[in-house]
Amino acid sequence: MKSFIEYASNTDFPLENLPYGVFSSGSVDQKHIGVAIGEWILDLNVISHLFNGELLKHKQFVFKEQTLNAFMGLTKAHWSEARATIQNLLHASNETLQNDLQLRERAFVKQSEACMHLPADIGDYTDFYSSIHHATNVGIMFRSKENALMPNWKYIPVGYHGRASSIVISGTPITRPYGQTQPVEGAAPHFGPCRLMDFELEMACFVGGAPTKVGDRITAKQAEDRIFGFALLNDWSARDIQKWEYVPLGPFTAKNLGTSLSPWVVTVDALRPYIVENYPQDPAPFPYLKHEDNFNFDIKLEVDLITEKSPLATTISRSNYRFLYWTVKQQLAQQTVTGCNLRPGDILGSGTISGDTSDSYGSMLELSWKGTKPLRLKTGEERKFLQDGDTVVLRGYCVSANGARIGFGTCAGKLLPAIPFIEI
Amino acid sequence: MKSFIEYASNTDFPLENLPYGVFSSGSVDQKHIGVAIGEWILDLNVISHLFNGELLKHKQFVFKEQTLNAFMGLTKAHWSEARATIQNLLHASNETLQNDLQLRERAFVKQSEACMHLPADIGDYTDFYSSIHHATNVGIMFRSKENALMPNWKYIPVGYHGRASSIVISGTPITRPYGQTQPVEGAAPHFGPCRLMDFELEMACFVGGAPTKVGDRITAKQAEDRIFGFALLNDWSARDIQKWEYVPLGPFTAKNLGTSLSPWVVTVDALRPYIVENYPQDPAPFPYLKHEDNFNFDIKLEVDLITEKSPLATTISRSNYRFLYWTVKQQLAQQTVTGCNLRPGDILGSGTISGDTSDSYGSMLELSWKGTKPLRLKTGEERKFLQDGDTVVLRGYCVSANGARIGFGTCAGKLLPAIPFIEI
Ligand SMILES: [Ca+2]
Ligand SMILES: [Ca+2]
Ligand SMILES: [Mg+2]
Ligand SMILES: [Mg+2]
Ligand code: NI
Repeated sequence: MKSFIEYASNTDFPLENLPYGVFSSGSVDQKHIGVAIGEWILDLNVISHLFNGELLKHKQFVFKEQTLNAFMGLTKAHWSEARATIQNLLHASNETLQNDLQLRERAFVKQSEACMHLPADIGDYTDFYSSIHHATNVGIMFRSKENALMPNWKYIPVGYHGRASSIVISGTPITRPYGQTQPVEGAAPHFGPCRLMDFELEMACFVGGAPTKVGDRITAKQAEDRIFGFALLNDWSARDIQKWEYVPLGPFTAKNLGTSLSPWVVTVDALRPYIVENYPQDPAPFPYLKHEDNFNFDIKLEVDLITEKSPLATTISRSNYRFLYWTVKQQLAQQTVTGCNLRPGDILGSGTISGDTSDSYGSMLELSWKGTKPLRLKTGEERKFLQDGDTVVLRGYCVSANGARIGFGTCAGKLLPAIPFIEI
Repeated sequence: MKSFIEYASNTDFPLENLPYGVFSSGSVDQKHIGVAIGEWILDLNVISHLFNGELLKHKQFVFKEQTLNAFMGLTKAHWSEARATIQNLLHASNETLQNDLQLRERAFVKQSEACMHLPADIGDYTDFYSSIHHATNVGIMFRSKENALMPNWKYIPVGYHGRASSIVISGTPITRPYGQTQPVEGAAPHFGPCRLMDFELEMACFVGGAPTKVGDRITAKQAEDRIFGFALLNDWSARDIQKWEYVPLGPFTAKNLGTSLSPWVVTVDALRPYIVENYPQDPAPFPYLKHEDNFNFDIKLEVDLITEKSPLATTISRSNYRFLYWTVKQQLAQQTVTGCNLRPGDILGSGTISGDTSDSYGSMLELSWKGTKPLRLKTGEERKFLQDGDTVVLRGYCVSANGARIGFGTCAGKLLPAIPFIEI
């Protein structure tokens, strides 16, 4: 498959990917929906009239919106038709866009000249806890090896409601928060800057399909129609604040200080060639969580840490989406089992994705094993947790046996120093 | 203060109240913003041109919206001007609306003929846990009298992120959910209908003011500009599901099956005459949680239970908002302490509001003391938890020493039987 748009062979965004995003640029002051192709963005707002397929010809307005919610709110068949249309329009053999120089001029924007925005209005954000290695690591650290996994963990895709308002687009700086901590167990708490700032390597699944009704259950077998696509997510976490606040209702202010999302949403259709076997589950899940097909993905995930000392990046973790114990279909079934309704644009966070080796963990907490094993960076510096000025960059990509590759771009954020608290 | 609209002396909605809501009616098929007055709704969409005050004359569009978000997004000064304008327009001595018979005909809709909707697009919903009697009761039941309150409870207004999508307007039926429970401690879990369905008597605070930025803190002293008003909230809870799922990340599917909200938002200005002393706090809160003024309210709260056997309601609880340990200013400060941003229309749930006597508890869990003391209803029936067909009605009102009264209307919901799970 060859496009008339030229791109490097190792681009994240070949013709086989076509992820959706929302951008603005000097020439486009409004937010437009676009598709990444090589180093370019194809502006779907400008070419919405070219969606002439059976399903989309009466739904062209979705490409004129300023978020992907309306498009996500259509059906799997619409998404596949859109993909086929775009793949066709960008193909080297297709002249429609290629040879209409005026339209072509208007329809392509350089990614380097665009400003990316959140792809959707995220109505609700759930964060799961589905990596068995992550849950085990945390369990060993805070309880014991014998009781590492909670009794419910292999029965329920454990998750909790996150804060939607504080989800920010990749590139947005994150400020070290102030909060309450309990430095000495049993002693009075302390108020001050977080001292154990961490990242969490996660992926976000965007929910699609028409809104469901309160009271409706969606089983894992029915979930595929509701899964639009994926992006990278960094669930920044203030570990010391979390530890003091989370009993008994879960993490709250330790997690709502900012959550970074990558701008390009890679669709399930693009990810299909990279489907791998589901993680083996024992005990067998309850029927509402059961699905027979494989819906796990071989997505290589990497975390770079860049300090203020030098632009030299150290890759501090190499993990993989396939390490997740629970599939996103099972997460979605759990989300709705008691009747919780879904809206297109909702996101389901995977939870921190840790592999089974100590260089594949998805958080500083695990990588430095609670601060006991400092990481050595290429700059010669050491890190137990994040320091002010540190930039965390998440990357994700898939490579097939024959070398075909698609990627997610990056999810980056720089940690700024805390804003001093002044009593007024 | 007398209106040209006649109403009973014990109405919830006298000229001193003027709560805002969103309605539609036979004659108004679109959603309109309205104000409750006696048994009527004053349609603000129809009289938006009468908001001629200094601040609102260029903001009349907010009354043409289909939700209160834009109005809530203005300032405290705007809200007060709106209240003064409406109070003036409805006053017996004012002829503008009273004597313009054509306008008057269009501007008033009977509440009994209107359909109420959610007052705002709720971007995020947080549920706190701020009633000391409730937290103590739950602590005694699940831990012990000595360790009833968690060590963090008197330092942090403990809360967690709730699900915004499943908030429904009063009157919407709630379906008994299916979910996982662990009937026998240590044994394998079970999947089936919830057996311990409960309500939670709460109040919701609507956040107002312009959206804040991620990273901004709002202290308790700065919080008042952000507090628009209050409504009644029933945080339906599946206790057995909650117990099995909530470790370690907090309640999830036990709470997202539907949360009922009353339609009328009573403003802080209307509640001012009912301000009472804050609950005494020991230890003194951290500076970010400190405010000197009283911001607690004497709001009488009642819960009626009506079964399918007869229309006879039993008032099963008489509680009061004033029992809350943490003020809503402190809740708001906690919400933002690590930099979480706010958007107008967000809600902060108070947490279950239990008084200090066993007839003032805010949930069946406490009223029946974990099912050990069944409640006797006027119908002769008994209840430990809710049964299918039960309707729960929350009521709230304030009465001053001189008998002046304002109210919140009701927050009602009927529990429907579970929808059987059929494996497909
Ligand atoms: Ca997380
Ligand atoms: Ca609650
Ligand atoms: Mg967050
Ligand atoms: Mg809820
Ligand atoms: Ni929204």
